[in-house]
Amino acid sequence: MKLLRVGTAGSERPALLDAEGILRDLSGVVPDIDGALLADDAALGRVRAAAGSGELPVLDADGLRVGPPLARIGKIVCIGLNYHDHARETGAEPPAEPVIFFKAADTVVGPDDTVLVPRGSVKTDWEVELAVVIGRTARYLESHEEALARVAGYAVAHDVSEREFQIERGGTWDKGKNCETFNPLGPWLVTADEVSDPQDLSLKLWVNGELKQDGTTAEQIFSVAEVVRYVSQFMTLYPGDVINTGTPAGVALGQPEPKPYLRAGDVVELEIGGLGRQRQEFKPA
Amino acid sequence: MKLLRVGTAGSERPALLDAEGILRDLSGVVPDIDGALLADDAALGRVRAAAGSGELPVLDADGLRVGPPLARIGKIVCIGLNYHDHARETGAEPPAEPVIFFKAADTVVGPDDTVLVPRGSVKTDWEVELAVVIGRTARYLESHEEALARVAGYAVAHDVSEREFQIERGGTWDKGKNCETFNPLGPWLVTADEVSDPQDLSLKLWVNGELKQDGTTAEQIFSVAEVVRYVSQFMTLYPGDVINTGTPAGVALGQPEPKPYLRAGDVVELEIGGLGRQRQEFKPA
Repeated sequence: MKLLRVGTAGSERPALLDAEGILRDLSGVVPDIDGALLADDAALGRVRAAAGSGELPVLDADGLRVGPPLARIGKIVCIGLNYHDHARETGAEPPAEPVIFFKAADTVVGPDDTVLVPRGSVKTDWEVELAVVIGRTARYLESHEEALARVAGYAVAHDVSEREFQIERGGTWDKGKNCETFNPLGPWLVTADEVSDPQDLSLKLWVNGELKQDGTTAEQIFSVAEVVRYVSQFMTLYPGDVINTGTPAGVALGQPEPKPYLRAGDVVELEIGGLGRQRQEFKPA
Repeated sequence: MKLLRVGTAGSERPALLDAEGILRDLSGVVPDIDGALLADDAALGRVRAAAGSGELPVLDADGLRVGPPLARIGKIVCIGLNYHDHARETGAEPPAEPVIFFKAADTVVGPDDTVLVPRGSVKTDWEVELAVVIGRTARYLESHEEALARVAGYAVAHDVSEREFQIERGGTWDKGKNCETFNPLGPWLVTADEVSDPQDLSLKLWVNGELKQDGTTAEQIFSVAEVVRYVSQFMTLYPGDVINTGTPAGVALGQPEPKPYLRAGDVVELEIGGLGRQRQEFKPA
């Protein structure tokens, strides 16, 4: 299923995009799309039955804002330098084990919402990423099978990054990853049953219409299953948590000087095969 | 006021400790203690009036669990190496600007709850810290006065840390800071009006009865006001967010080999002047 949330920010209603691409209202079936729903087989079964019935009310998608496809996100665990081609372009050695940093859930906005270039920023950068949405508590997992069984679904994430804040201002990467609006998510949460192989997804990102990133999750150093298993050794993952699994080559940081960092007025579009497309205008904070 | 939450984990009710040290039930006045309450002057006024009336129901504190004093915590921003004496003991240069890392809100437990030593951990360490609770949205603040006006109150935090995960496993500090139960908080949220000078608070921590940390917030490299102002340049702080403002000298990491890291069976007690005391037994995860 393609689950999503539509309406004004903070007042989104749950919806789904059916097999014919028709937007249908789920608010009569479940109150929202969140970790509690994803952990609840009975409720998910009701959604699936309603979707299959073809009788859910149709919503007029015209002019309707799409919000993030997940409410009440817990934590967002991010994996750094997780693509062979991206590690090469930044001059970094491929990490021996996954690099972990965090984004706060309050950085999440809808897939087409405005992104704010922070005040004083001269190095705002883009990163298309596969987001993994957790549906079952994951704690000290031992196998990749156990790990994938905790994944409720997948979505497109934009891990917007300020490289000066991240790298040159002392301390850890979190300082450049948590600016307001820095995590567009969506449009859809595609349930895991519809993603036959998370290591065979194409990722693309354009800036002002020019293709900048053109990668595949086959280049991931640590697979989705390994990332979930690994992270669960250091922290417990709960339903409604999200993992941003890293970005392929093609970010501004990896390009020759003068690096083409984002400025107010730029438009970024990104998509992952089967998971939908985002479009953000960048404006000053 | 000293606000707190009592009862079984996940079902705490709001309470306050009155001027005579009597525990009183707030559940008839407000639904919970969270960011929404802290941002709501009218609701806080009702709490204050009820406290002053002397008519709130008395709760029997005997055997009652104390939970974290804040529900629905947003993000927890942590400041690293923020005490002159702690920077010295770890051999680090005092940072030129605040070092930021994150703890997830799901690591928060009550002040006397069990703390779990992670599986495979050999370097679990303690850190007594002053936690700052945000009551007003803080975004691009310009002055220390503006910053302090965003602070709703203060609490004791234990920033439990796994040093191998934090320092030796690649990537940022977050990997050693987010293990399950790694952020005991409380017992009280002491409102800012009762903390006359946040730069004049004593912090103490004992392991199995032996005093290990004996510091003062006067040793902070970046004051509470400066930390709030600084953080607000990189991310927006919302009501219900928490900042752990760093730890003074005396952690295991700073001691000669063999460093006395924590093991299952150890008991840690910590307190900050005027903010109360915590006691945790450490057990295996």
